[in-house]
Order: sequence, then structure tokens, then C-alpha cells
Amino acid sequence: MAKPFEFELLHVCKQTGARRGRLHTPHGVIETPIFMPVGTQATVKTMSPDELKRIGSQIILSNTYHLYLRPGADLVAEAGGLHRFMNWDRPILTDSGGFQVFSLSELRKVTENGVQFQSHLDGSRHVFTPEVSIGVQEKLGSDIIMQFDECSAWPCDRDKARSAMYRTIRWLNRCMDAKKREDQALFGIVQGAFYEDLRIECAREMAKLDLPGYGIGGLSVGEPKDVMYKILEAINPIMPQDKPRYLMGVGSPDCLVEGVMRGVDMFDCVLPTRVARNGTVFTRNGRLVIKNAAYAHDFGPLEEDCDCYACTDFTRAYLRHLFKAEEILSLRLLSWHNLRFLLRLMEDIRSAIEQDALRDFAEEFYAKHPRGDW
Amino acid sequence: MAKPFEFELLHVCKQTGARRGRLHTPHGVIETPIFMPVGTQATVKTMSPDELKRIGSQIILSNTYHLYLRPGADLVAEAGGLHRFMNWDRPILTDSGGFQVFSLSELRKVTENGVQFQSHLDGSRHVFTPEVSIGVQEKLGSDIIMQFDECSAWPCDRDKARSAMYRTIRWLNRCMDAKKREDQALFGIVQGAFYEDLRIECAREMAKLDLPGYGIGGLSVGEPKDVMYKILEAINPIMPQDKPRYLMGVGSPDCLVEGVMRGVDMFDCVLPTRVARNGTVFTRNGRLVIKNAAYAHDFGPLEEDCDCYACTDFTRAYLRHLFKAEEILSLRLLSWHNLRFLLRLMEDIRSAIEQDALRDFAEEFYAKHPRGDW
Repeated sequence: MAKPFEFELLHVCKQTGARRGRLHTPHGVIETPIFMPVGTQATVKTMSPDELKRIGSQIILSNTYHLYLRPGADLVAEAGGLHRFMNWDRPILTDSGGFQVFSLSELRKVTENGVQFQSHLDGSRHVFTPEVSIGVQEKLGSDIIMQFDECSAWPCDRDKARSAMYRTIRWLNRCMDAKKREDQALFGIVQGAFYEDLRIECAREMAKLDLPGYGIGGLSVGEPKDVMYKILEAINPIMPQDKPRYLMGVGSPDCLVEGVMRGVDMFDCVLPTRVARNGTVFTRNGRLVIKNAAYAHDFGPLEEDCDCYACTDFTRAYLRHLFKAEEILSLRLLSWHNLRFLLRLMEDIRSAIEQDALRDFAEEFYAKHPRGDW
Repeated sequence: MAKPFEFELLHVCKQTGARRGRLHTPHGVIETPIFMPVGTQATVKTMSPDELKRIGSQIILSNTYHLYLRPGADLVAEAGGLHRFMNWDRPILTDSGGFQVFSLSELRKVTENGVQFQSHLDGSRHVFTPEVSIGVQEKLGSDIIMQFDECSAWPCDRDKARSAMYRTIRWLNRCMDAKKREDQALFGIVQGAFYEDLRIECAREMAKLDLPGYGIGGLSVGEPKDVMYKILEAINPIMPQDKPRYLMGVGSPDCLVEGVMRGVDMFDCVLPTRVARNGTVFTRNGRLVIKNAAYAHDFGPLEEDCDCYACTDFTRAYLRHLFKAEEILSLRLLSWHNLRFLLRLMEDIRSAIEQDALRDFAEEFYAKHPRGDW
């Protein structure tokens, strides 16, 4: 029987080196590579837990910063943890709050101890440290917890990137010391901004710590996609083969394909639900803006061959009407489709890896809609 | 085999005279008394058709005025009718648009021919007549269509009420002449404001027309509930026993109980979904405002013994968090509960009628929460 948080590397694609794996957690097994829907406030926007299961979500992500502020980690703990609070019995990954507090550019102050910040909700003052972040995540009770890290922006000068990377390693050690629960896996986060040598150094140092998995942070923050791909290529041979790698905050369809080809096992992103609420859906032929007049009399599905509820039961004309009429059902159905689109893409990617044919799959995928144009 | 639109009066409660019936339609059978969820814009707000079935919705209502303006009756007809457009294969009732255009107080002008009005969406000018309303409803293809009527407000002087009532009868005759489809049932609408003799006269005149059913309009527009109950008592013996009676726009829990006891078979109202979106739910103990601090640490269900998804799978504490965090899932779950609450109430009422025990049921119901206080 597999140990908790054991990662089985089942197969490596002969065409691409992409990895097909299986991660064991206390709330079940995750077949990788995988996309994780984001449930920032203990709910994946517009979706119910039953629906998330129906579309094949194996694991979801939730945000420590948001839950810490509202409803508060103590309340979630009192409810029996995040799984019981939101009635989701499959695995959950929580981030550390690092990215969120660093994003509060005007409202935070960084020291070696941690980050002082003001709540975006009410302006109240708080401090996140590696110890606080781990403590909050232990109260939430997620299966995978992330280290508190210092994030860099794009662009970022080398000195800043270097010092943030070293601080991230120091904070990782503090997170490891602070961690008490045995039923949670702590992932380190490889930083180093857009400097390959810094990234490699960070990956190398963290590999020594023999953690159950590693995030790759500070990417997809505004840099060109090719810059991100080069970083992934640089660290791919450095990162431990027998541990899952999680590319944080990345979720456009082409980035998923390209990330997997560069050794990534896990992804998350608010993109599918956010663009859905703005009326945009993914299809294998590219993005589709549902309010366009072209769809007024279009009685076909959002996407041919899609098996999601929006596509099997409703037409573009109806979804366009709902969206223009500002009906909540439109936000639900468009979100549903976009999440299912990404989960189905990952299913196809997993199957292509098993068949040593991910390069072929990618070419076919880009033949319908070019890479970089998502 | 029952004819289309045949109404079977299955049983009359010996305690109250309440009616247990069965209405046949081209899209299936409706067990009465029944509450109809409102799908104004071809969707019951926040709910999917699958969910409406899961909570036991036998029939839904949709609004002709709204669909005429957006997406337009021709588009709905092109989609194959409203059932196919919204993917609802059970019965649909459409109103005539009369109530909506009369509610546009500053934006409409009434003549014997019909009502000139301006769209609430873009100010564009339109005319609804009995013939236009029937034509639109025929394009929508609902099972039950309502006559175009002249609605009175509360209060309403006798002369105005009288003339609106007579005009409603004249318009009913024009609707009957205009109607072409055989697969739709046209209901007349008893008007006469708050004058029992006018109501009785209207009911008597309309009964002569031998229509498949009758609405009772112009009530629940601001008058005290007892005024409405007296009107219902006055017309109860006048209205044909063998035809369904539909009390339009009424939906608070006590009004459903009282209406059924006064011979009503069908109800509709936006109340359950509207108050849900404001964070209020119905329980057998009265209304519950989910954002109240009292529920912050309450890990029980919205309502004990309720079988809805919100109650079986989530806690008050979680629903309160979702509502305060402005998450769409909260609007979904609160709407879900309120609709299920009313449908379950009607199930209990049907069963109480069958057992000649509706008076007992009502007393028990009011013992938990007093009549008039909903």
C-alpha cells in the first residue's frame, strides 16, 4: 500500500519527457498531470461540490489569505476543517497567502520576520510569517500546504530576485520547523524570478530538503510565455524526479500543454471561472465570446463533442440570451464548461503521455488553435 | 385516456373543501394544488432545469413581456419553442404580459385596443393587445396561456374596478377569437379588484365561456391578506368546480395554505427566489436571515428535516460565510431551499387533502409560526 503523499511516477512520455504520475493523499489519489479548480473562499465560484465531482475534479485549491480573513481559520477548524466546512471530501491544496499579501502592493511591509499587511476587506492590520501561515493551514486541514514565500514581480532586478529567493529558502526552513501535523504534505516553492541560474540554485537547495513536492512560484505574473517556458526547461532536470511539481497560478490551455511537456504535474488558475463570468469560453478552436451577435441564432452547443452539462443540454443561442439577461445560470454553465474543458484537456494529456504521443497531441491541439493565442 | 387539458377533481377535503386535482397537459400531468416556480427570462433564477426536476417542480411559469422584449418571441419559436429553448420538457404556463405592462405606470397608455408601453430595457415603444399577447404566447408554445387583462391597483375605486373588469371580459373574448393553436389551453382571468360583487359577476360571466381554467388576478398587490381571502371566499362557489383555479402572483407560505382552503389549485410567485437572493429562507418556524451573527457558528442545517441539497449537504455557518462573501453558490443554495420548501409544503397539503385533514395540517403549521407573519 502506498504511503501518505507517496508520488508514483507511472510513465514518462518517450516523445516529450512529460510525466504521468499518481499522488496519494489522505483524501484520495490524484492522477497527474492535473488541473486544480480554484475555490478561493471555500467554494469554486458558481459550482457545487457535486458538480465539481461530476466534471472530474480530483483536487481543488483554496486560498489561505482569504479564509484567514473570512470566515477565519478558527471557525473552519471548529467546523471540522475545510473539507467538512465546504463539504468536499477529496483532496485540497491551500496556498500560503504569500502571493496574496505580496500583491497588496500599497498595503504591505516586508521584513525578515514576515509580511505586515492590511486586509482588502476592512483595512485591519495583520502579520503573516512562515509560522503563522503554517498555523493557519493546519487549522484549515488541507492535504497539501504550501510554504510561505517571497514573490517577485515582472520585471525584477537580479539583486531583488536573488535576495527573495534566499529568503524563500530561509522561510521554507522555518515552515518545516513550524509544521506539526503529520497528515499534511508541505511543498517548498522554487523562486528566483526570471534568472535561470537563480532558479536552478533554488531548486537544487530545496531538493536537498527531500520534501513531498515542490511548487514553482512567481511565474505567469506578466512575463512572455517563452520566458516562463525557458525557466521550466532549466529546472526540469534539477527538480527531483520522484516528487510532484506544481506550477502555481498557471492555467491557459496552451500553458498547460507546454508545462506538462516541461515536466510539470500540477496546475491551478482562476482563469477558467473568471473568463466564464465575463462571458468567454474555451473551445478546442480557441476562445468564444458568447455575447457576440453571431451566436444569437446558433442552436448548436458551445463546443462540439464536449460532454459537459452546458454543451449536452443547452445551445449557444440560449446561453447568449442568459448572459445578456444577466442570469446566474449563464455564469454557472459557462464556468462549468471552462472547468470541464481544462479537466478534459488534462485527461487527454494523461492518455497521450501513456501512449508516448504527447508531441502528436500537442500538434493536433495547436493545429486547431495556435499556441500563444489563448 | 384523459383529454388534453382535462382537469380531474380527485377529492375534496371534508374538513375544508380544499381540492385535490390533476390537470393533463401536452407536456405531462400536474398534481394540484401546486406551486409554480417563476422563470421570468426563460430560467428560474439560479436554478438549472435538472435541479428544478430534482426538487419536484411539475410546471414552471414564464413571463411573456420579458421574453417578447428579450430574446424575442421569433427567436424562441426558431429554437423550437420555449420548452426546447430552455430545455424544460415539463409543462409551462406563460402570463399574458398584462400585469407587467400595467406595472410600467409612467411608461404606458391604455386604450380599448390595448396598451402602448415603453420597454424597461431600452425605452423602445410597443403595443400589447389581446391579439398580440396571444400571438406571442403561441410563438412561445407554452402549455397554458393567459388572457390579456386589465389589472387594477390597490386601492382602486369602484368605477375603475368595474370598467377594468368589463374590459377584461371583452379582451377575453378577443383572446378566444385570436387563439389558433389546439395544443395550448387559454385561461381567463377573474378581475374586479376588491369588490366582491364585481368579482362574482366576472367569475359568473367567464364561467359561461367554458374555458379550460381560470386565473384570479389583481390580488396580492398591496391589500391586507384578509381582503384577498374574502374575495376568494366570495368567488369559490361561483367558479366552475371542474376547472383549475390559479391565484396569480401569490406565494407566501400562509397564503398558499389559506388559498388552497378557499378552493385555489395553482399558485406562482417570485418570492422564494427573490428573498433567497437577499439572504432570507423559509423554514416551518418562520423566516431565517442567514447573515445574522447567530448563525456564524451554527453547524446545523438551514432547516431540520428538509430534504433539499442545501440542507442535506451544508451548514448554516457555511451558507452564512458564502452569503457574506457574495458567492453565487449561496444564492443557488438559498433559492434551492426556498423553492423546495414551497413544493414540499404543497406536497404536504395535497396529502392532507387526501386525508380530509387540511384544517389539522394548517393548525399544526401555524402552531410553529403564526399565520399572517410570513
